[in-house]
Amino acid sequence: MVRELVHQLPHERIIYFGDTARVPYGPKSPDTVQRYSREIAAWLISQQVKAIVVACNTATAHALEILQREFPLPVIGVVQPGARAAVDATRTSHIGVIGTAGTVASGAYERAIHAIQRDAHVVAQACPLFVPLVEEGWLDSEATRIIAREYLRPFASNHVDTLVLGCTHYPLLKPLLSEIVGRDVRLIDSAAETAAETRRVLESRQLTAPPGSAGTHRFVASDAPDHFLRQGRRFLGTTIDEVEKVTLG
Amino acid sequence: MVRELVHQLPHERIIYFGDTARVPYGPKSPDTVQRYSREIAAWLISQQVKAIVVACNTATAHALEILQREFPLPVIGVVQPGARAAVDATRTSHIGVIGTAGTVASGAYERAIHAIQRDAHVVAQACPLFVPLVEEGWLDSEATRIIAREYLRPFASNHVDTLVLGCTHYPLLKPLLSEIVGRDVRLIDSAAETAAETRRVLESRQLTAPPGSAGTHRFVASDAPDHFLRQGRRFLGTTIDEVEKVTLG
Repeated sequence: MVRELVHQLPHERIIYFGDTARVPYGPKSPDTVQRYSREIAAWLISQQVKAIVVACNTATAHALEILQREFPLPVIGVVQPGARAAVDATRTSHIGVIGTAGTVASGAYERAIHAIQRDAHVVAQACPLFVPLVEEGWLDSEATRIIAREYLRPFASNHVDTLVLGCTHYPLLKPLLSEIVGRDVRLIDSAAETAAETRRVLESRQLTAPPGSAGTHRFVASDAPDHFLRQGRRFLGTTIDEVEKVTLG
Repeated sequence: MVRELVHQLPHERIIYFGDTARVPYGPKSPDTVQRYSREIAAWLISQQVKAIVVACNTATAHALEILQREFPLPVIGVVQPGARAAVDATRTSHIGVIGTAGTVASGAYERAIHAIQRDAHVVAQACPLFVPLVEEGWLDSEATRIIAREYLRPFASNHVDTLVLGCTHYPLLKPLLSEIVGRDVRLIDSAAETAAETRRVLESRQLTAPPGSAGTHRFVASDAPDHFLRQGRRFLGTTIDEVEKVTLG
């Protein structure tokens, strides 16, 4: 996500906050995820941001509307752009969604997809072990393959032609997932779409940085900057120079 | 752990606090685990407890000494009783320890075992995927077996005759772990030992409840009482009537 934002908005000053002290959000209740999301948004606003991207599907599913209602700046989530990309990609209108327990239980993707295409057939499946498997780097192991086959079973009988990777960790499993569902199933990663949506929102409100500005990137974590550095490299595909620690809650 | 405490201390009023809003502790830094442990201890003291059992290996490894220093009541951890049980069980003095990333990185078991038996040979191995696998109920699946074989490989070449299950989730994997390391390797679960140690501490300070008292049990979670209920049943092997929610942090 950060990589796409940096790519599409090279002149912006971007602050990335990772709530490493309290992740994973996936198994947690809407109440708790909302409380954490509010705290992070308030902290970002204290840093004078002009817009917030909720770069987490679970937080988007549980808290996006609350943040949009309570905070006086644009708040962009990842679910709507992912849903849009899925509807654009599908030919059969049979769309699969995988995500955390929280994202799937919220029904957020079904609602977002049906708002665009009322008659789409959506099958959603929680894959709670994918986040720890990705965090531990088990991206191409037989164990992950067995777990993925079990999780993805509902899609075999439902003939989806498009599968939404409804969690920011899942794109790292793309090769393995593609092998299981078949190369003809389109895998939708909402990062590029969300970055594009962020650009559109900034442009429509005339909030974009001037083309001459030097973009800057700040990485902030609520726990163990070292761990964040290591994970960050895996997700960003680039090195991070420095991670600041900020304690919330 | 609660089951053993209830069994060995039937007349006590026990409050079980599960920090479900912020678990898992295993991958988090000592600082963060110390901060969370302090908050929980302070809350328990506000409920007038007379002693605290830190029924989590990671919290014990990172925070036990701090809690013992900062709070004016007995604080009992799980590492020392587990180390004692391992030393009592081993015949070859070759002891294996498995735990979370945090517990293993802390070196707490090595220190505790060497304090009892200076020449013991201790091999510790982090098994970060075991907690999510247990939480998701993958207790006897081929995927878990593959992951466990990978994690337990160091013990094959080190000929341990005793393996400490250094995380309160791991006893649920006992049959699978025993199958992998061999039936002749003793698996040490510190729950019974910790409960016995708690009883000894209460007795030595004359803090035990009178034999006629009716024991009571309160379950408190920082997130989603429903989820706690479901998990609680799996760990306790019994039903819980009610879970209260208390927000910390």
